[in-house]
Amino acid sequence: MQVYEAPIRDMLFNINELHEDDGFGNLEGFEDFDEDVTVAILEEANKLCRDVLLPINWPGDQEGCRIENGVVRTPKGFQEAYKQFCEGGWAGLGVSQEWGGQGAPHSLGKMVEEMTCSANLSFGLYPGLTGGAMVALEAYGSDELKNFYMPKMASGEWSGTMCLTEPHCGTDLGMLRTKAEPQDDGSYLVTGNKIFISAGDHDLTDNIVHLVLARLPDAPPGVKGISLFLVPKYLPKDDGSLGNHNNAGPTAIEHKMGLKASATCQMSFEDSKGWLIGKPHRGLEAMFAMMNTERVAVGIQGLGVGEIAYQSAVYYAKDRLQGRSLSGVKNPDGPADPIIVHPDIRRMLMTMRAYNEGSRAVSAWVSRALDAEHASPEPEARERAKDFVALMTPVVKALFTDLGHESAHLAVQVYGGHGYIQETGVEQFARDARIAQIYEGTNGIQALDLVGRKLPDRMGKNLRSFFHPVSQFIEDHGSDEKIGKMIAGLQQAFGALQMSTGHIAQKGMKDPEEAAAAATDYLRLLGFVAMGYCFAKAAKIAHAKLEEGTQEKDFYEAKIITARYFFDRLLPPVMAQMMAITSGKSSMMDMPAEAF
Amino acid sequence: MQVYEAPIRDMLFNINELHEDDGFGNLEGFEDFDEDVTVAILEEANKLCRDVLLPINWPGDQEGCRIENGVVRTPKGFQEAYKQFCEGGWAGLGVSQEWGGQGAPHSLGKMVEEMTCSANLSFGLYPGLTGGAMVALEAYGSDELKNFYMPKMASGEWSGTMCLTEPHCGTDLGMLRTKAEPQDDGSYLVTGNKIFISAGDHDLTDNIVHLVLARLPDAPPGVKGISLFLVPKYLPKDDGSLGNHNNAGPTAIEHKMGLKASATCQMSFEDSKGWLIGKPHRGLEAMFAMMNTERVAVGIQGLGVGEIAYQSAVYYAKDRLQGRSLSGVKNPDGPADPIIVHPDIRRMLMTMRAYNEGSRAVSAWVSRALDAEHASPEPEARERAKDFVALMTPVVKALFTDLGHESAHLAVQVYGGHGYIQETGVEQFARDARIAQIYEGTNGIQALDLVGRKLPDRMGKNLRSFFHPVSQFIEDHGSDEKIGKMIAGLQQAFGALQMSTGHIAQKGMKDPEEAAAAATDYLRLLGFVAMGYCFAKAAKIAHAKLEEGTQEKDFYEAKIITARYFFDRLLPPVMAQMMAITSGKSSMMDMPAEAF
Repeated sequence: MQVYEAPIRDMLFNINELHEDDGFGNLEGFEDFDEDVTVAILEEANKLCRDVLLPINWPGDQEGCRIENGVVRTPKGFQEAYKQFCEGGWAGLGVSQEWGGQGAPHSLGKMVEEMTCSANLSFGLYPGLTGGAMVALEAYGSDELKNFYMPKMASGEWSGTMCLTEPHCGTDLGMLRTKAEPQDDGSYLVTGNKIFISAGDHDLTDNIVHLVLARLPDAPPGVKGISLFLVPKYLPKDDGSLGNHNNAGPTAIEHKMGLKASATCQMSFEDSKGWLIGKPHRGLEAMFAMMNTERVAVGIQGLGVGEIAYQSAVYYAKDRLQGRSLSGVKNPDGPADPIIVHPDIRRMLMTMRAYNEGSRAVSAWVSRALDAEHASPEPEARERAKDFVALMTPVVKALFTDLGHESAHLAVQVYGGHGYIQETGVEQFARDARIAQIYEGTNGIQALDLVGRKLPDRMGKNLRSFFHPVSQFIEDHGSDEKIGKMIAGLQQAFGALQMSTGHIAQKGMKDPEEAAAAATDYLRLLGFVAMGYCFAKAAKIAHAKLEEGTQEKDFYEAKIITARYFFDRLLPPVMAQMMAITSGKSSMMDMPAEAF
Repeated sequence: MQVYEAPIRDMLFNINELHEDDGFGNLEGFEDFDEDVTVAILEEANKLCRDVLLPINWPGDQEGCRIENGVVRTPKGFQEAYKQFCEGGWAGLGVSQEWGGQGAPHSLGKMVEEMTCSANLSFGLYPGLTGGAMVALEAYGSDELKNFYMPKMASGEWSGTMCLTEPHCGTDLGMLRTKAEPQDDGSYLVTGNKIFISAGDHDLTDNIVHLVLARLPDAPPGVKGISLFLVPKYLPKDDGSLGNHNNAGPTAIEHKMGLKASATCQMSFEDSKGWLIGKPHRGLEAMFAMMNTERVAVGIQGLGVGEIAYQSAVYYAKDRLQGRSLSGVKNPDGPADPIIVHPDIRRMLMTMRAYNEGSRAVSAWVSRALDAEHASPEPEARERAKDFVALMTPVVKALFTDLGHESAHLAVQVYGGHGYIQETGVEQFARDARIAQIYEGTNGIQALDLVGRKLPDRMGKNLRSFFHPVSQFIEDHGSDEKIGKMIAGLQQAFGALQMSTGHIAQKGMKDPEEAAAAATDYLRLLGFVAMGYCFAKAAKIAHAKLEEGTQEKDFYEAKIITARYFFDRLLPPVMAQMMAITSGKSSMMDMPAEAF
């Protein structure tokens, strides 16, 4: 059973309570989004996700997309759902009002994204890619392009894509071959083949705006010779109506492990007319503006799937009767107790819950920083926010998607044999979540980005935006009666992280393979320290609320138990990855390639 | 690419070198299986698996099984492959010569099973279930039943199943409802519905011998009222030819996440004629004879998938060109280096390799004990072997299947985007491996079996069969120049295991939920100590061989590097699970069910 109700109470806790003291100040320009509006938006989004997107999630997986006469057809119900999505203004939720969007803060927008990803990850990719394309277009496009395309994309009338990968190059974009020939009218003719293009073609919108990486004739080799082009599926006329097909279309769709209702296309461009975005040979820069947004978005995908997996597992654990509680019969009128009484089922549910709440807390923190980067009145706070976003982007992407995938599999395990059967819909979560660890840069690439770029950048300045609040918090609360034990655990993990950082800084300086060998373990350790910090803070707030005699006793008590579970059960093994990190590269690199 | 060549050299290392001093003595009755015969059998099995079973693995996944007019059809090529399998005598490899089998030791048979599971897990289930059914039949069946059925099953002419699960009861078999009415001729009429029956119907054999759990009219409630019956699909005549259909057949097949070429059936029995196996109401005992064998076999499935996942990932890591080595260009004539040069790819390959070699070593140890249990000339050694098998059966089942699934996902990750596409065949490993963590008792149930039954049994006697050799080895080699560092790591992990055992013994005595809350972490810790012990022993042997000036320098050097990787990178986080174990049940159990 795929079961979902947006965790609005926890979302509000993260938006309003957890990060009040994050040092980013009061943000400007979001005055319209007060608490009432925030609640109203979350509740409306929940309705859309629960009542419109969720019901077509499993049928969409079973039906999949298909290609007919060169046109991709989405599964039944997707067109109607997309129409409702656009009519509700969701396509432009985070887009500037200048382009007809709502201009909502990331702090709110990411919560809505989480809901969409929970309810229907495949569906979410269609507007998701459009959102990413708008980021690059807004930041690097000419005014003419922006004025023409942005409003159509913000309304959802037209969608967008990112066309990077080619059969022989994914991570290593320096090898890409697609070409762009300049024309006299200032446009370009783009020719080449792309693969793995999400939403590359579909029947949800009349037109699709492809952002395509290609080489100009005079391009230097490697990544320094890549430019970015806007290539529409249909060439629009000046009045916005559609003209000729632009020879930019799908040649096939991929048969994938999951995410089957999202069309992943092989694309062909043949003298397709396009326009340069940004400067020649600087396409990667523009693409990275989009990629960074997308990476946080992909992290949220992991969280979204983790949340619905958790809720669906809880539903079953309360419903399925099997065995009796070891501490005495709990359901005397039934033939057996619900399996939620069993410790090992609890272990799985609590693990998923802690992953989700921990990820949501870190995500809210990063989202605040995404907002503060532009909307904080203090230049120093903006700078700190920017550093923090840079540091945490790969962590959010890799950690959340790893945990989301793990949660999906825990849900399958809670369902037992029934989880392996397609009809219950739970194994779909595991198949869908799996891609998020791969696309927008594999999680290994994220870890390399963290240790290879984000750590050394400006002598570790990014890291200070994270280390400072954590060490301050530990210092301030070490002798706190209520959360002292958690602080001790956090301090130990933070110590392991500092030691690991020292190891990477010292060894990696001389030998970059040493840093790379530590990367994946280090990213996880850093991510768990970030979650631990958020859990300790949350527990502190919860204790204070309980002392005050809050009406929401259950919510805050549950928050404390989940935090305790995290410190008792989940943090210690990750902390010990410090030993793996400091063991160095030799056992990883000594094996000759031919011995494998 | 699904790539496979049986790891025969490592198998021989495990059969002949690693466990020589295991204290089980020289086993009797396997004189025919000298080294030449062993090598010949492994090589023949490799040919069958690589050349016959592997080529139909991916097509079988794509085509799946189907049900037509009440009969299940296996995918193209399965019938022909099964014929070859039987003609080669593989169906009876481990079956006593009394019934026409080969009588090979488990030490050899499990290696062949690993190969089958690597090459084609779905295929392997058909003869695998027959093997399990033969174990129960041989141990508990009447001479009449055995004489009639065993030869037909040992040759593979007829296959077998285990029919346990019903829609409302899987783990909790006490609730089962299928009924058996005694008849005047000593037979029974069995009526009821079963689900999740592997190989419940298919077109590989003329007849199928179902072992069915059902209740007699006078059965007491719960698990003490369950009996086991042999119910053939067709009622055989006295001469062995087939008579009437026995109303024992499939009503549907399940649509599963993976293992699609294995028919998982919903079965209906309607006044189907059957014969009692063992005593009335003692069916669970007979079923457990079969279950225990099957649990080790399922563990081997995890290892098998892990091995082909590893090999397929290595193939791609050497083939795929992307990026340049951080320590200098390795493939100057190509546009990029093969990705095996990158540390994070190494991390994934070495992890898979260590899991596989570690699992194979433990599996060989347990297989030796399975043989020694019956074939050791010394009663004490037989007793010790039996204790060891009892202890390790849940560990083999749960740990190997967890690691196999993890390896399959690491392989997908090595393939990146191409791993998510069905055509490369790698995501199939992940989908196929997933079931092994669930069936034959979920891995959570295995952990409960370990801490709830196997640990306390006879005041911890089972555990001594494992603790004794490990502590002896640590004592003997603590100051070994070559492996001293590994011994230090092993000692630390062993200490964590002892402390965890003490926690469970002490707390679990008063409160069984405390033991249950520790179970899954404890199983993993115990399993990793077992692998660590095997790796340290293997490294010791390898160092000695290298000192002697062996011809196989590469093999032994690789063994040492893999062992180092295990101790450096994989053992520390698992060791730290001791902290999770000793934190107790409270953070797991305190949350009220309604707060989830």
